[in-house]
Amino acid sequence: MKTEKPPTEKSITTTPFPASKKIYVKGKLHNISVAMREIEVSSGVASKIEKEIKKERLAVYDTSGPFTDPNISIDVKKGLAPIREKWIMERGDVEQLKDFSSAYGNQRMNDKSLDLLRFEHLRKPLKAKAGANVSQMHYAKKGIITPEMEYIAIRENQKQSHPTPRSPQMGESQGESLTRTGFSPIRGDERGGAITPEFVRSEVARGRAIIPSNINHPESEPMIIGRNFLVKINTNIGNSSVSSSIEEEVEKAVWSCRWGGDTLMDLSTGKNIHETREWIIRNCPVPVGTVPIYQALEKVNGKAEDLTWEIFRDTLIEQAEQGVDYFTIHAGVLLRYVPLTAKRITGIVSRGGSIMAKWCLSHHKENFLYTHFEDICEIMKAYDVAFSLGDGLRPGCIADANDAAQFGELETLGELTKIAWKHDIQTMIEGPGHVPMHLIKENMDKQLKECHEAPFYTLGPLTTDIAPGYDHITSAIGAAMIGWYGTAMLCYVTPKEHLGLPNKKDVKDGVIAYKIAAHAADLAKGHPGAQLRDNLLSKARFEFRWEDQFNLSLDPDTAREFHDETLPQDGAKTAHFCSMCGPHFCSMKITQDVREYAEKIGLADDEALKKGLEEKAKEFAEKGSEIYLHE
Amino acid sequence: MKTEKPPTEKSITTTPFPASKKIYVKGKLHNISVAMREIEVSSGVASKIEKEIKKERLAVYDTSGPFTDPNISIDVKKGLAPIREKWIMERGDVEQLKDFSSAYGNQRMNDKSLDLLRFEHLRKPLKAKAGANVSQMHYAKKGIITPEMEYIAIRENQKQSHPTPRSPQMGESQGESLTRTGFSPIRGDERGGAITPEFVRSEVARGRAIIPSNINHPESEPMIIGRNFLVKINTNIGNSSVSSSIEEEVEKAVWSCRWGGDTLMDLSTGKNIHETREWIIRNCPVPVGTVPIYQALEKVNGKAEDLTWEIFRDTLIEQAEQGVDYFTIHAGVLLRYVPLTAKRITGIVSRGGSIMAKWCLSHHKENFLYTHFEDICEIMKAYDVAFSLGDGLRPGCIADANDAAQFGELETLGELTKIAWKHDIQTMIEGPGHVPMHLIKENMDKQLKECHEAPFYTLGPLTTDIAPGYDHITSAIGAAMIGWYGTAMLCYVTPKEHLGLPNKKDVKDGVIAYKIAAHAADLAKGHPGAQLRDNLLSKARFEFRWEDQFNLSLDPDTAREFHDETLPQDGAKTAHFCSMCGPHFCSMKITQDVREYAEKIGLADDEALKKGLEEKAKEFAEKGSEIYLHE
Repeated sequence: MKTEKPPTEKSITTTPFPASKKIYVKGKLHNISVAMREIEVSSGVASKIEKEIKKERLAVYDTSGPFTDPNISIDVKKGLAPIREKWIMERGDVEQLKDFSSAYGNQRMNDKSLDLLRFEHLRKPLKAKAGANVSQMHYAKKGIITPEMEYIAIRENQKQSHPTPRSPQMGESQGESLTRTGFSPIRGDERGGAITPEFVRSEVARGRAIIPSNINHPESEPMIIGRNFLVKINTNIGNSSVSSSIEEEVEKAVWSCRWGGDTLMDLSTGKNIHETREWIIRNCPVPVGTVPIYQALEKVNGKAEDLTWEIFRDTLIEQAEQGVDYFTIHAGVLLRYVPLTAKRITGIVSRGGSIMAKWCLSHHKENFLYTHFEDICEIMKAYDVAFSLGDGLRPGCIADANDAAQFGELETLGELTKIAWKHDIQTMIEGPGHVPMHLIKENMDKQLKECHEAPFYTLGPLTTDIAPGYDHITSAIGAAMIGWYGTAMLCYVTPKEHLGLPNKKDVKDGVIAYKIAAHAADLAKGHPGAQLRDNLLSKARFEFRWEDQFNLSLDPDTAREFHDETLPQDGAKTAHFCSMCGPHFCSMKITQDVREYAEKIGLADDEALKKGLEEKAKEFAEKGSEIYLHE
Repeated sequence: MKTEKPPTEKSITTTPFPASKKIYVKGKLHNISVAMREIEVSSGVASKIEKEIKKERLAVYDTSGPFTDPNISIDVKKGLAPIREKWIMERGDVEQLKDFSSAYGNQRMNDKSLDLLRFEHLRKPLKAKAGANVSQMHYAKKGIITPEMEYIAIRENQKQSHPTPRSPQMGESQGESLTRTGFSPIRGDERGGAITPEFVRSEVARGRAIIPSNINHPESEPMIIGRNFLVKINTNIGNSSVSSSIEEEVEKAVWSCRWGGDTLMDLSTGKNIHETREWIIRNCPVPVGTVPIYQALEKVNGKAEDLTWEIFRDTLIEQAEQGVDYFTIHAGVLLRYVPLTAKRITGIVSRGGSIMAKWCLSHHKENFLYTHFEDICEIMKAYDVAFSLGDGLRPGCIADANDAAQFGELETLGELTKIAWKHDIQTMIEGPGHVPMHLIKENMDKQLKECHEAPFYTLGPLTTDIAPGYDHITSAIGAAMIGWYGTAMLCYVTPKEHLGLPNKKDVKDGVIAYKIAAHAADLAKGHPGAQLRDNLLSKARFEFRWEDQFNLSLDPDTAREFHDETLPQDGAKTAHFCSMCGPHFCSMKITQDVREYAEKIGLADDEALKKGLEEKAKEFAEKGSEIYLHE
């Protein structure tokens, strides 16, 4: 075990991405600045066909926060700027408390031995005024478009400043996708398929999307989780009693945002999780989720049967006042479902689920998270903490998928969603787990039906159990599919799943695998603009613009490194061939020649395309001798 | 560029897999010994519930060849034992030639400067006697069950020597899968869903499966490619003029078989590809495929327009007599399809396709592979080389997927399939490429229809273009899906795709990603026995039998290494907790406690399961005080 120490500047990654700059897009309804990353595509050799070099810029969704803006100085000890603070205060429905409301929170605060470890610049917590509800769903239902909602509408629209010649065809292909898949997204279409602030509001009001945004986490850049928006990914970090320090965890948080994590769950179970969480939240530009039962269990020394509602309640308040944006609550693990897991190969694999199952059986009482569900709602609405209703009975292996325990719990989560919505609490539903491909769609369909279209948030699912060490891949397959079917957020899985705690490399590998899954799903769903990046990258590839290819890729560092392994010379990055085939055999090079031939002899006109083989062959024979005399 | 040298023993990996031994299952119809790998599951701690340690053994499909049998001494310079030689000779329809029939083959043979580089123990080539057809399809249509067919039937049935208590439920789940997916495989069901030799024969006769098995590659262990069998994967290796040596390529071949490659394509384009191929084939336990046009192009110094039928024909014969088991032939790239690619973002990305397109346009003539297709059939049938009809017009990016060029070529491949079948030539069809998820199924459906259910053999498909460096993942997603839909063989993609030539690590990463995709597809299709390994591994995981978990995994080395990174102590491998949560919070441990509770109080009986919450709660309250007095 390592000794814990607070993070330092040195340990935090802040390098901007290559050929990219941070841009800030202004709002129209509110005085807001939406951070995006603009990639410039310009270097290298122009297409032979298009003759001149064109500069193009693509603004892409950016989760990396201020860390990749060289104009902002980062001080981990002070935390990030509270960009949402003004918006929250201007709504006039919150008050600043004099002290933390949680007994445990105050106890930690007054523990002198933690002074060196504690985040220095603690703010006093905010809470809704008596009787007020500060949830985004509450505002949405009242017809209010918050700054958060406008921020999201701007952020969700990826824009290309100079459309490529190919963009019309891209549009066509997306049109087709909607027809062919039978998927019909509901969107605000006033701006040509783009996401509008009003559409964001309406989806949140309807419960089909959530904006996790605790009033005590004003550092968080607003984002939305819903199936009519870009598919999001969550990353898990957190130390256990066995391994890792606060410093490592904060860097892992920043690191996971850098590569594309949309939300972050802190699953720490070790010592000092209160202090670790504080450091993470103050430096985290994305919403933070937790599983409060883990910390509650720490407080009763790991004995599930000693848990009480009072200890749990104090933990919820402690975390809500630190700024946790969503809580995983395993309120669907009912007494009657527990025996349904007894014949499974892997029983209950959710930690939270097994804790609650043990509590239920020990006391022969119903799950206190279920019986106190409305009490929990009262806490959530005072801080705008969103529910992530936990799937405590998710399958832990292929053989246990889609069984009575899992689906029984899902039905209960549907009931609880209705109750949460009655309180205007934003709610999403957690899903599996381990599911073979042919059983994935049933999960999505059942979730939409039972949970009234509340956003689904799945862990993978893993599509086979036989590849420990590669579960980022076994699960990226399932994640891409369920994302296409309608899952709003995919919880990443790292290569270390089932084997150990992820290090930085594992976090990055997991994030990239899940960005791939989410983006593949966006393409299949026909999300507006999703294909722009694919098209620009493919065009760069075809034209041997290597630098552009690297810069547009999800991981420019690795793309460049792999290329350099085979052809390290600088000249190779402007060469008109790629490293796989060498100069003579490159199909792309040959294709360019083919295209020039075809254009020269007018093969590409529509009339010609309609003619059949015989005609065409005849035509060639007739025209041939003349056309090719020049060669 | 590196200097080439022949391979040595040292460079070849021969270590057996942990807890595994090579077993040889005897045939009933023929005197054959089918190599399989038997994994023993036995170490570690017994389940608390089941009280005693049970030894179980699982025989799994094994592509690694004699290299993992410590009882066989490997001599790369002599090559592998020709296990099929006797079967081939006993059929009495082949003759041994005095010399190679290819002019180029003889030229290389007589080149003294190649003496040091040449494989020493060359056999004289075999060829069908005049008028004979030695293809497995020809035998199958005549009703003959060859030793190859029986070998395959035995090999395709994974067996567990002592079924786990869970195997009945596994059967149930598979039964469900057929209903739920609407997928209805056609199988020989006399042996309870198992694959029979007669079923193998009937599928080959019907053209729904192929057994690539050139009579000049007797070292190859028979395997089958067809959608009613286990999904197979192909690996590509091969040097280019830019990089790598013969020694590296032979080790890559053996290495790719070790990790699960079912066939191997040698795509070399560099110098000495004749000699490189000889070394590979003589040491390769799986079928070898090539794209003969690459070598033909070398012979005309890279000028596509200088290619002739005569040069190509000599190349086919040269390679057929070396023992290549299948040829990719781009005979579907017709003149009329070429202009259809002109408006694409990435044009023609298949090397073979672009070569033929260039040839067609240069000569304003129809593709000579198409016009000479029946001449090619005559060569194929004399050696039993199978067709892999190349998709020269496959899409090279998301935007180009499923377009008129691609589907036009596919229709032509369907016509050619009929012609090949007329000659009893085994035939499979190559498929894309880059396809977004929602357009994948259309590819499979169209291929089955147009190509009369000939096996589909796809490259991925990649489901997004934005992740160079991770295309083994972007494509494993598409590969798993299209495998489930019915693709028989998946051509792997390595992390270096689009960037450089794969090294050994890349080959392994690509193979494992594709074994995952293929196995996920087998599970979704309900292939008999596929889930046995998942169930055994999951059971080992649940019971904290770490060693068994490693040994059953696709890559035991990596699983062990990742576990050891967090908990390196030997004790941790028998510990009743995992490295993610530490001893107190492990859900698996808690579940075992839950299960004991549940069993003790009889919660698991079917009657109890039917009761609703109220009843159950009441029942607990009533029984409670008595049951838990013992605690």
